[in-house]
Amino acid sequence: MQHFLSTQDWTKSELDQLLLAAKRLQQSPWNERMRRRSIALLFFNPSLRTRTSFELGMHQLGGHAVVLQPGKDAWGIAFEESTVMDGSEEEHMKEVAGVLSRYCDLIAVRAFPKGQDWLVDRQDLLIHHLAKYSQVPVINMETILHPCQELAFIMALQQRIGSVAKKRMTLTWTWHPKALNTAVANSALLIGTRFGMDVTLLIPEQAYALDEQFMQQAHSNAQASGGSVEVTTNIEQAYRDADVVYAKSWGALPLYGQVQEEQKLREPYRHFIVDEAKMSLTNNAVFSHCLPLRRNVKATDAVMDSPQCMALEEAENRLHVQKAIMLKLLNA
Amino acid sequence: MQHFLSTQDWTKSELDQLLLAAKRLQQSPWNERMRRRSIALLFFNPSLRTRTSFELGMHQLGGHAVVLQPGKDAWGIAFEESTVMDGSEEEHMKEVAGVLSRYCDLIAVRAFPKGQDWLVDRQDLLIHHLAKYSQVPVINMETILHPCQELAFIMALQQRIGSVAKKRMTLTWTWHPKALNTAVANSALLIGTRFGMDVTLLIPEQAYALDEQFMQQAHSNAQASGGSVEVTTNIEQAYRDADVVYAKSWGALPLYGQVQEEQKLREPYRHFIVDEAKMSLTNNAVFSHCLPLRRNVKATDAVMDSPQCMALEEAENRLHVQKAIMLKLLNA
Amino acid sequence: MQHFLSTQDWTKSELDQLLLAAKRLQQSPWNERMRRRSIALLFFNPSLRTRTSFELGMHQLGGHAVVLQPGKDAWGIAFEESTVMDGSEEEHMKEVAGVLSRYCDLIAVRAFPKGQDWLVDRQDLLIHHLAKYSQVPVINMETILHPCQELAFIMALQQRIGSVAKKRMTLTWTWHPKALNTAVANSALLIGTRFGMDVTLLIPEQAYALDEQFMQQAHSNAQASGGSVEVTTNIEQAYRDADVVYAKSWGALPLYGQVQEEQKLREPYRHFIVDEAKMSLTNNAVFSHCLPLRRNVKATDAVMDSPQCMALEEAENRLHVQKAIMLKLLNA
Repeated sequence: MQHFLSTQDWTKSELDQLLLAAKRLQQSPWNERMRRRSIALLFFNPSLRTRTSFELGMHQLGGHAVVLQPGKDAWGIAFEESTVMDGSEEEHMKEVAGVLSRYCDLIAVRAFPKGQDWLVDRQDLLIHHLAKYSQVPVINMETILHPCQELAFIMALQQRIGSVAKKRMTLTWTWHPKALNTAVANSALLIGTRFGMDVTLLIPEQAYALDEQFMQQAHSNAQASGGSVEVTTNIEQAYRDADVVYAKSWGALPLYGQVQEEQKLREPYRHFIVDEAKMSLTNNAVFSHCLPLRRNVKATDAVMDSPQCMALEEAENRLHVQKAIMLKLLNA
Repeated sequence: MQHFLSTQDWTKSELDQLLLAAKRLQQSPWNERMRRRSIALLFFNPSLRTRTSFELGMHQLGGHAVVLQPGKDAWGIAFEESTVMDGSEEEHMKEVAGVLSRYCDLIAVRAFPKGQDWLVDRQDLLIHHLAKYSQVPVINMETILHPCQELAFIMALQQRIGSVAKKRMTLTWTWHPKALNTAVANSALLIGTRFGMDVTLLIPEQAYALDEQFMQQAHSNAQASGGSVEVTTNIEQAYRDADVVYAKSWGALPLYGQVQEEQKLREPYRHFIVDEAKMSLTNNAVFSHCLPLRRNVKATDAVMDSPQCMALEEAENRLHVQKAIMLKLLNA
Repeated sequence: MQHFLSTQDWTKSELDQLLLAAKRLQQSPWNERMRRRSIALLFFNPSLRTRTSFELGMHQLGGHAVVLQPGKDAWGIAFEESTVMDGSEEEHMKEVAGVLSRYCDLIAVRAFPKGQDWLVDRQDLLIHHLAKYSQVPVINMETILHPCQELAFIMALQQRIGSVAKKRMTLTWTWHPKALNTAVANSALLIGTRFGMDVTLLIPEQAYALDEQFMQQAHSNAQASGGSVEVTTNIEQAYRDADVVYAKSWGALPLYGQVQEEQKLREPYRHFIVDEAKMSLTNNAVFSHCLPLRRNVKATDAVMDSPQCMALEEAENRLHVQKAIMLKLLNA
């Protein structure tokens, strides 16, 4: 039994097959290959695209999705081993996984990191415990990685520019009023290097470096794929001749959980916004973002509304790639 | 592409056709005309009837509805042009509309006015921005109008009394512990005059007058339809010989956003409750309300439980008219 | 028209037929017998299993479930007769029942007791008013009873040990950080005695006795079925030679609504946890619980992970018995 927790667990050839299947599903969205199949969608955090695309995707394949929000309309869930559950959680992941495995054919989960201790959160325990206890395949709908987004991004990029190998991809940090999850940044880094791109990570200062585990994976990826990884704090250098600009905001890991201090550190860097001036340095680059995006904070209206912006195509592709993933996991 | 934002955007003949289609769907509720079609239901506010009737209605036509609650289980949404989004909203309507248009065939939205500044709220910007940016038809599930309710009301009335032209309709304000939205009152006024009724708006004092834009539309409607509009503070005069009594509570627009002051103004008018004594002045009038209704606050148990009350029929008709609207918007 | 509010309203033969139908549905889960049928699921409280099993169950029978959360995404609901609704509830059960009866073929409700006055809560007014006003069958998804859980438990037990008559069932109170609902304890007591088991209710002290109405029903049940009921505070005596151990925590009724006092009373009884030492006193008993369960608070990991634990089977059976109940109520 295979899960879809990280693209790193899948071979490049398997990822290529998923993308091919997704493109076919875009052409021909409806079939009955998931008839009598169901998926439980566990949302610990809000969602618009993910919720809609999984629910509709399953429906378009003849199956059914059940949406659950633990701690809101369902019970809070603990997942540590041997824990004495006298806190706020009413239920253990062993039972949640066990029960949902008996009801459903797939389980997908969105569980953002808790934001207090990165040494804990970087282990991504919740989804790994879910996968461990589940009798059915588990799909990551965003934890500290967002692998469905990765495939949607690559698919959109391939449809825009063809083969992505050796293309220059700038992954730029942007300012945001809150210290956000690094998931999409980690994911963009992984998938770019996996597909042989020359990835430049642009950060305002060293504190915004991504976690070492993902940097190492990116370097291994690049070595295997013929791509490269480079980190810079130089905006002009990062944008110069880029073929792709991908924007994301995240909080500084050394100040993880220290909201005020992190905010102070971030404050001087509002000028990392993606704007026309920066885009004019590029090789007429396509621009994208995972959404939701705060306009005129992360990127200007001019960039978002330009023909270079492929954010909506990427969002649409969530539907197609997720259908491909569900079908593959169930060999359906 | 047509939207369903206000019945004022539709010709009388189109509205008649929707009502005819709704009556047919009541007789024959199930078909497959929305097979492979989907609708996104965006709820910024609670719902029981609207949610259930849209979701089931789509299902009965072979399609699928996705229920989203921005700011609760989905992200908060900004909609102003060129706004620097450094407040609480995470996402702009351009992207929401763009993404949902790629996933779904229809978008419906419930967005009550925010209740702070009527000069802003009376512009109904959220739904108009949604319609502007959407690539698919948009349906109003209640903003400062409630056009689906309008058709459900007229349909119930026609089924009770036949042709409604020249019938006397009393639209009465009632007391309620909170300053509510004027949407259903505006809508009742518009649809009554549109269908040639002689509409009397009963309010406790001038502060409870409805917005001038809807009064003007009502006067134009009456002129075109052969109906009439009149405003009074005289309870007896308003009820005398009425054929239809429609009740609704709303807050005084001159004190919009001033909760305490408005409450004080409203306090002396609890006697506007619809009761048997008032109903006995009428021409054995039918009574209705959009629901939810606070019993013995807006109307007495005796009135609600009387055979004259058609509130449940009106609620049922929501299902039928909304199915007719969805089918019409998609020419399905 | 029959409702499913309590197993006490159904004959033993009818319950046997439901269990038989459930076992058949476990073997053959999919059919179209609920085609064009729908159910409204009203949740006043959180749910994972109930929500998922009803929604999927209806889907597997070709029908559709609508999930509503009054007071959250739907309106708050009053249900007392002749009440002047100037409090927080926006809507009366008469209208909710009336409207949902027009949209749906079945209505199911979860409404935990409010926890302030047991003399009020023990009357279970909400669901009885819903059933009174509904034009369609009503199903109890847990109020002060949990009859769907009862059937799931008996089904799991029959599949483990065959005929349950004259088997020794220990229903043990366990500690929990909160004063929980007595519903599942009441239900386990009723269904055990109904099926002829010798039920021992183990409580830490007299304050944890269950409500007299359910004790009396249990005694009548036992008399009719050839079973028995006994109450004890002696742990060893309760566990000795038991064939089944069923665990549940609940608050002391004499201190109902007095959170702090009740907590103090409960505090010394953490040792009522189900552990291996206690289980070793039994006749190799099967263990179960309705879930959600706090591990190492109500039962140890060793007990939960042992082959004796049938909690997941019981949870799975919720799906099967609820499908049987829906089909039976609609003669479908």
